[in-house]
Amino acid sequence: MTTEKIAGVSVATQANVYFDGKCVSHGITYPDGTKKSVGVVLPATLTFNTGAPEIMECVAGSCEYRLAGSDAWLKSGPGDKFSIPANSSFDIRVAEAYHYICHFG
Amino acid sequence: MTTEKIAGVSVATQANVYFDGKCVSHGITYPDGTKKSVGVVLPATLTFNTGAPEIMECVAGSCEYRLAGSDAWLKSGPGDKFSIPANSSFDIRVAEAYHYICHFG
Repeated sequence: MTTEKIAGVSVATQANVYFDGKCVSHGITYPDGTKKSVGVVLPATLTFNTGAPEIMECVAGSCEYRLAGSDAWLKSGPGDKFSIPANSSFDIRVAEAYHYICHFG
Repeated sequence: MTTEKIAGVSVATQANVYFDGKCVSHGITYPDGTKKSVGVVLPATLTFNTGAPEIMECVAGSCEYRLAGSDAWLKSGPGDKFSIPANSSFDIRVAEAYHYICHFG
């Protein structure tokens, strides 16, 4: 079961562009102030650093990810989530596209 | 005056990816059913075709655009809008990034 839409939110009109456009996201804010983002990672192998803890929820496509300190590449597809601790990092490799919701905190 | 946020809308979580990621957008739907999109064009020269008429509103960055049938490249920056007729096309060239809201109809 994937989350196709997020209703009743405010959307930042300016995109966040990372890694020369290999990752593009838009920030969203809920009425209670909760912030998330919706984005896509295009074909690439990238390393992301976290400040706050994050939960990455796949809504379409797929990726493989590897958490800091692990040797294992794990697959994440539609409806799957994975968690990254605060002040950590993860590697992600994408063959086609990985569409996600990023939950913070 | 640029539009930094759009409140009270539903956001499609899956991005629209065009031209191998040179253009990425997310669809938004207003409570009355009106659909728009927020997106970014990365450095490239591209041609977009329209079905419905479109108004492109720049929220950050800039582009140059040329409407079908015109020889003139015109600049569009933050707060600027330009209109494209239905069933037409326009060329766009972007040096850094062009962040936009696309209004349909």
